[in-house]
Amino acid sequence: MTPRVYLAGPDVFLREPMAAAERKKELCQAYGFEGVFPLDAELDLGALEPRAAGLAISRANERLIRDCQLLIAQVTPFRGPSADVGTAFEMGFARALGLPVYAYTNVASDFTTRTREFVRTVRARTNRVIEDQDGMEIENFGLADNLMLVGAVEHSGGKLVSFDAPANARFTGLEAFQECLRLAKRDL
Amino acid sequence: MTPRVYLAGPDVFLREPMAAAERKKELCQAYGFEGVFPLDAELDLGALEPRAAGLAISRANERLIRDCQLLIAQVTPFRGPSADVGTAFEMGFARALGLPVYAYTNVASDFTTRTREFVRTVRARTNRVIEDQDGMEIENFGLADNLMLVGAVEHSGGKLVSFDAPANARFTGLEAFQECLRLAKRDL
Repeated sequence: MTPRVYLAGPDVFLREPMAAAERKKELCQAYGFEGVFPLDAELDLGALEPRAAGLAISRANERLIRDCQLLIAQVTPFRGPSADVGTAFEMGFARALGLPVYAYTNVASDFTTRTREFVRTVRARTNRVIEDQDGMEIENFGLADNLMLVGAVEHSGGKLVSFDAPANARFTGLEAFQECLRLAKRDL
Repeated sequence: MTPRVYLAGPDVFLREPMAAAERKKELCQAYGFEGVFPLDAELDLGALEPRAAGLAISRANERLIRDCQLLIAQVTPFRGPSADVGTAFEMGFARALGLPVYAYTNVASDFTTRTREFVRTVRARTNRVIEDQDGMEIENFGLADNLMLVGAVEHSGGKLVSFDAPANARFTGLEAFQECLRLAKRDL
């Protein structure tokens, strides 16, 4: 059976999400995988109020993940120093199910560097701990994002690929995604 | 057996995380629960390099969640319009395990409003869809955060409590947390 890969990421927010999905699915196929995109459930949302539509999408996506054998998450920083929270949620969901979790980011700087740039103030709390203007610690583990995300990738047997894509391909560049596919094909 | 509640949230980044943990645990006890805080594993991280320490914490937290019967997540917006990604990850993890997921936020405005304030530009893509300066869609479902987070709460039988805490209690206010405990005690 062709292993099914859930394609988590902010790609769903792109102007042409289905075109982006197609490009990823073609690459999946080239590496012996079947790509599953969050919008694949083909829900009929037309008649639903916004809130009900949002909840229906959530339910459909959970079902799609349960039907996959691995997950590749785009963790490119999204509206802040971290990955999109929907993507983070889906990584946690897949991890608890025991799926290998792969991830890629098109911004290669580390999480601490990005957070330092994002917050208004950085100050030392102790010798080893830095915090922001609200006294909230800034994670400083030399990781690509929050430790739960990176830990899930590591502990699940996946890989995290960091790559600096051009600014105009921040959410669309697929070099790092393709590298995840190559590694997954090699390892699984 | 006293049900164990995993206390997800950015509380771990506070200056005095163990004091914050104690306050939450006392409230848990008052409602018949045992609170489990992310830092409860008492890892000996002293000898580890930062990266190894981060991964050890991730592994310990996953184990703690697996040992709980429900989860209450603080989803107060953290360095951007959304919840902390580590918290989002843990919600997904708990949801996949079938745990009831409760959540609270100390900022009651909805996700679309917060995202509109955060991005540089908001423009119409179609009649129903708005997007930011990068052409990335802004979720507009009338929910408190990304639909995967809110959906997990709803579908798992939990509740999401929104409350406007004073600015100086943004990450420490416990009114909404306590309401989650009250609802969990009533429902479980």
